[in-house]
Amino acid sequence: MDAIFRALSDPTRRKILKLLSKGEMTAGELAEQFPISAPSMSYHFNILKQSNLVATRKEGQQVYYSLNTTVLQDILLALMDLFGVTAENGREEK
Amino acid sequence: MDAIFRALSDPTRRKILKLLSKGEMTAGELAEQFPISAPSMSYHFNILKQSNLVATRKEGQQVYYSLNTTVLQDILLALMDLFGVTAENGREEK
Repeated sequence: MDAIFRALSDPTRRKILKLLSKGEMTAGELAEQFPISAPSMSYHFNILKQSNLVATRKEGQQVYYSLNTTVLQDILLALMDLFGVTAENGREEK
Repeated sequence: MDAIFRALSDPTRRKILKLLSKGEMTAGELAEQFPISAPSMSYHFNILKQSNLVATRKEGQQVYYSLNTTVLQDILLALMDLFGVTAENGREEK
């Protein structure tokens, strides 16, 4: 969870995630959206990959990035635990 | 959001939040739970306060900490936005 929350703490990385929420993109397509140097983009990509928030696949010379939405469930469970929200509290019939 | 996610990226600070999810505690009561120096605890308290995840009130010499649960809603909305989850997707009748 440390790595996930650290990855989420940067606006550039959050913008990358938001772009990927609409579908897979290549490293180049993502980089075009940011007035940021290639090494800085690589740095952000690496942090997102290490935290498992994004997945990559290679096709020829291209690297495709996609959002790993299963991590969202882990984040939500961690937040519910932290804030003392139980499944019981969340039920409407309660 | 930067400050909130950065605050959440540390296990000591997450443990402080979890303790506070059970109710208000004094700085001293919290500090007892951690094998950490007073300056380090103050550092973590400050980060949690700056991110608005915890609120404080003073009563005499005591500082009481409590969880600011309204921030949870902000975090959830931010995550839904990042991961492309809309209210519509979340509805069961969809």
